[in-house]
Amino acid sequence: MGLLVVGSIALDSVITPFGETADTLGGAAVYFSMAGAVLHPVQVVGVVGSDFPEAHLTALAGRGVDLAGVERQAGESFRWKARYSYDLAGRETLETRLGVFAEFRPRIPEKFRAARFVFLGNIDPELQLSVLDQVKTPKLVACDTMNYWIHSKRDVLLELLRHIDILMVNDSEARELSGDWNIYRAAQWILSHGPKMAVIKQGEHGALLVDPTTIFKAPAYPLQEVFDPTGAGDAFAGGFMAHVARSGDVSFDNLRRAMVYGSAMGSFAVEAFGVQRFESVTLGEVDARVRAFRDLVHFELGGEKR
Amino acid sequence: MGLLVVGSIALDSVITPFGETADTLGGAAVYFSMAGAVLHPVQVVGVVGSDFPEAHLTALAGRGVDLAGVERQAGESFRWKARYSYDLAGRETLETRLGVFAEFRPRIPEKFRAARFVFLGNIDPELQLSVLDQVKTPKLVACDTMNYWIHSKRDVLLELLRHIDILMVNDSEARELSGDWNIYRAAQWILSHGPKMAVIKQGEHGALLVDPTTIFKAPAYPLQEVFDPTGAGDAFAGGFMAHVARSGDVSFDNLRRAMVYGSAMGSFAVEAFGVQRFESVTLGEVDARVRAFRDLVHFELGGEKR
Repeated sequence: MGLLVVGSIALDSVITPFGETADTLGGAAVYFSMAGAVLHPVQVVGVVGSDFPEAHLTALAGRGVDLAGVERQAGESFRWKARYSYDLAGRETLETRLGVFAEFRPRIPEKFRAARFVFLGNIDPELQLSVLDQVKTPKLVACDTMNYWIHSKRDVLLELLRHIDILMVNDSEARELSGDWNIYRAAQWILSHGPKMAVIKQGEHGALLVDPTTIFKAPAYPLQEVFDPTGAGDAFAGGFMAHVARSGDVSFDNLRRAMVYGSAMGSFAVEAFGVQRFESVTLGEVDARVRAFRDLVHFELGGEKR
Repeated sequence: MGLLVVGSIALDSVITPFGETADTLGGAAVYFSMAGAVLHPVQVVGVVGSDFPEAHLTALAGRGVDLAGVERQAGESFRWKARYSYDLAGRETLETRLGVFAEFRPRIPEKFRAARFVFLGNIDPELQLSVLDQVKTPKLVACDTMNYWIHSKRDVLLELLRHIDILMVNDSEARELSGDWNIYRAAQWILSHGPKMAVIKQGEHGALLVDPTTIFKAPAYPLQEVFDPTGAGDAFAGGFMAHVARSGDVSFDNLRRAMVYGSAMGSFAVEAFGVQRFESVTLGEVDARVRAFRDLVHFELGGEKR
């Protein structure tokens, strides 16, 4: 069933303790679709400038990403530059040049409007609402946001929350949105404002899936080497949504599995610079990592074994 | 089989956003034994001053803690005073008065020397080594330490590591000891210095059990209300070791379960001030929480279900 993502397509420049990149393929919609396409075809809506390398788009298309919704406009592409601290835990944004992304108005191509699974990447909540006006019968809508919108467009964001199924945010964003530092209370606050579920991403500590009665925790994969944390959250979202789309199953039990596929994709994202790892990762490698996640958390209660 | 703990017995004064306590029962050996005794009898070796309330010792004895190794000496008891930040994530030590604890020399009573399971609480590594000289045939020795000893007695600590089975420390301690910020590499560093296993406590993010080939992750229990984080790590250790002692089983699979019992005890510890919660918690409540931990992390792979 159709899986649609709307969000940024960017040229990233990143400085880490292990090296430096310049103008590599990046952006939320890119990480989402590169990760998601490993499991299920992804339809992308976004915008690039006249300077955006055709080779980047070819790479995406080659991985099963449908770019019919990507407009090319006169002007500069969205550029983002950041530096990570020595332990990769801290990140300083050095430069953000929105370019054509500043005037982005998502237009969903006719053939994408029947998408059953929709991910609204982190853009102005007014634009996220406009996407929902254009899709016909979505089965599951998930949505990201960021602190900037929480402060500058809180009312629109609260309106948006009434129209989505899952809010998928970082722990710091959940705290800012709810005004509550306790992450479990923050999740309940989110549920009381519309979404059926909340996914709280906790970086190196994994992610939580919360509905009104149940909590599922997916730990992060134990990696001895992390090269570039950029895009891990978007790759997580891509793996999560693609697993749901390929199965068509929105039960909580299947969303638990989706959390693990998301975590697997997040772990692949950080193992190499940019989206590199998704250019080679196989379905077999993904399944092996999902099994490793089970070994990581699995335990038997005494009573089962005796 | 006998379970022995050696460590501090203290009078704690704690300030949290929810209230303040003065001279309540505390200390690593106390949290360990109050939590552990819910599952299995605990033998304690420690020291108290002439001012230590008899009622505190009676409370411990009433919960199945054998105090034959607790000496009462002339002088002041160990006192510790701290203030937590509004979100309980930060803690400032306001006062530490060692009193009789400064001259503590663990003497293991004859009847405790056959203990098969030994936990060396955070004390001078020279004293921890002296405990090992006094116990006869331990089956599993676990050990805590802190940054102070890592810096001031590194050589003795490294000698100690060659004689223990499990080092059980916080993530920050593992990082300082190994000089590596990556927690999984830090764990492997520990294993290369003697211990068969490392348990890395990650506070609100749970705990890791690591051996040379396997990692097990126990998340923290999702609590919407935390009252007092004091002693959570020691209660964890108590639950962990008591589960191992009552089963006598040191297989990795059983240590996975021990991690969950430890996490359950850590979660009870923080639900009330001091050791209060352990005065009433039942085995049924513990088992219910262990089952809740399984629901929190359990997922089925697609292949199993279809």
